Amino acid sequence: MYKIVLLRHGESTWNKENRFTGWTDVDLTEQGTEEAHRAGKLLKAEGYGFDLAFTSVLKRANKTLNIVLEELDSLWLPVEHSWRLNERHYGALQGLNKAETAARFGDEQVLVWRRSYDTPPDPLPEGDERLTVDDPRYAGLPKAQFPRTECLKDTVARVVPYWETVIVPQILAGRRVLVAAHGNSLRALIKYLDGISDDDIVALNIPTAQPLVYELDADLKPVKHYYLADEETIRAAQAAVASQGKAKA
Amino acid sequence: MYKIVLLRHGESTWNKENRFTGWTDVDLTEQGTEEAHRAGKLLKAEGYGFDLAFTSVLKRANKTLNIVLEELDSLWLPVEHSWRLNERHYGALQGLNKAETAARFGDEQVLVWRRSYDTPPDPLPEGDERLTVDDPRYAGLPKAQFPRTECLKDTVARVVPYWETVIVPQILAGRRVLVAAHGNSLRALIKYLDGISDDDIVALNIPTAQPLVYELDADLKPVKHYYLADEETIRAAQAAVASQGKAKA
Repeated sequence: MYKIVLLRHGESTWNKENRFTGWTDVDLTEQGTEEAHRAGKLLKAEGYGFDLAFTSVLKRANKTLNIVLEELDSLWLPVEHSWRLNERHYGALQGLNKAETAARFGDEQVLVWRRSYDTPPDPLPEGDERLTVDDPRYAGLPKAQFPRTECLKDTVARVVPYWETVIVPQILAGRRVLVAAHGNSLRALIKYLDGISDDDIVALNIPTAQPLVYELDADLKPVKHYYLADEETIRAAQAAVASQGKAKA
Repeated sequence: MYKIVLLRHGESTWNKENRFTGWTDVDLTEQGTEEAHRAGKLLKAEGYGFDLAFTSVLKRANKTLNIVLEELDSLWLPVEHSWRLNERHYGALQGLNKAETAARFGDEQVLVWRRSYDTPPDPLPEGDERLTVDDPRYAGLPKAQFPRTECLKDTVARVVPYWETVIVPQILAGRRVLVAAHGNSLRALIKYLDGISDDDIVALNIPTAQPLVYELDADLKPVKHYYLADEETIRAAQAAVASQGKAKA
């Protein structure tokens, strides 16, 4: 049996400002930094250790990971970075305030954009300064494949091949794996692992910086999963994520 | 022509306490953290960017590197960690205060231990708690090869193969390389690159967290090298390093 840990980054500046972030490379807030330290201390207290970590190419996930590794005295661990673990690309919504967008288009439309499985927001137009095609961190991603927007289905389509081809072989080789990523790249992975339906995935919210353990059988099918923090903490954190898109949030 | 940057970590707690550190995994001081931020800002101001970084498995170098990468907005860069870039192992001197050791054995003996090319201090005895053979970060290093002490010649003997087999191919592939390491692993590398004699290497002191640029020709022979900071800053920093082993320091 194998055990992996999934971790969403701590609160970012745009989580706090309630803006659609996507591939925008925003920093952690002070609270997000503290959350990451708490996550690391919790993992340490529970006796977790890792041999290898995977993360996105976005600093809020990279910094969360580095803080956790520091708490675990494991800054020397190999870390693999990939755009495939990036947050879902939010297209033309990137940078907009979620509550303002909800006030303008209605809670329901925003919930569709945020949580519908296969309806992407409008794409970023060519020449939009939010289109970071030329950033060197995306040098390995063919320009024609660079996402202009994504629905969760699109995110699943680029996360799962990375899981299958890069992460799975390491787990099968016996390495203890930590994945430090984003709300939607983790929802994409969990949808795949747990076989969650397109409808049911809408209701799944992942709290920031709460270590989520998946125990997998020899075929890497999930046997069970659980957060390390107590249930009350997790419920409150999930409710905070779920309410972000509301007009009155 | 190629350009690489070498960087010694910022001030560590044992630099500050004037103790022989070696493979002891001590943290940066607050000043060391600030030095690392300054190094990152300086590299950024001078237009430096990197494709790949190499570092040791010791946190003072890892943290220095992470701070520099954060300043360069490059936390997504691939980083290779290796014990071969660790500080020189200081054997039985690890943990001892340099000034006290000098008062006891004399400045000259301490200078021999610190700077002689081929005289190692006494080895750590079997069972000494400072012998970190079982630390998971050294899982890839056969126990029989784990150093109990090193002179600089020993450090050269493990740094150069890493340079030749791991770093050089990346430079030749056109990748811009940053090496974030330690006073003596960098002295070992520089001795090799510049063909410095066993006698002359004694006088070479590398200041903490000062980016050192090496320009290399097509055969990777050094054409010139220079620190990014102004000469006065470097001279003061080198003098501070050189005086560390003195009884009255």
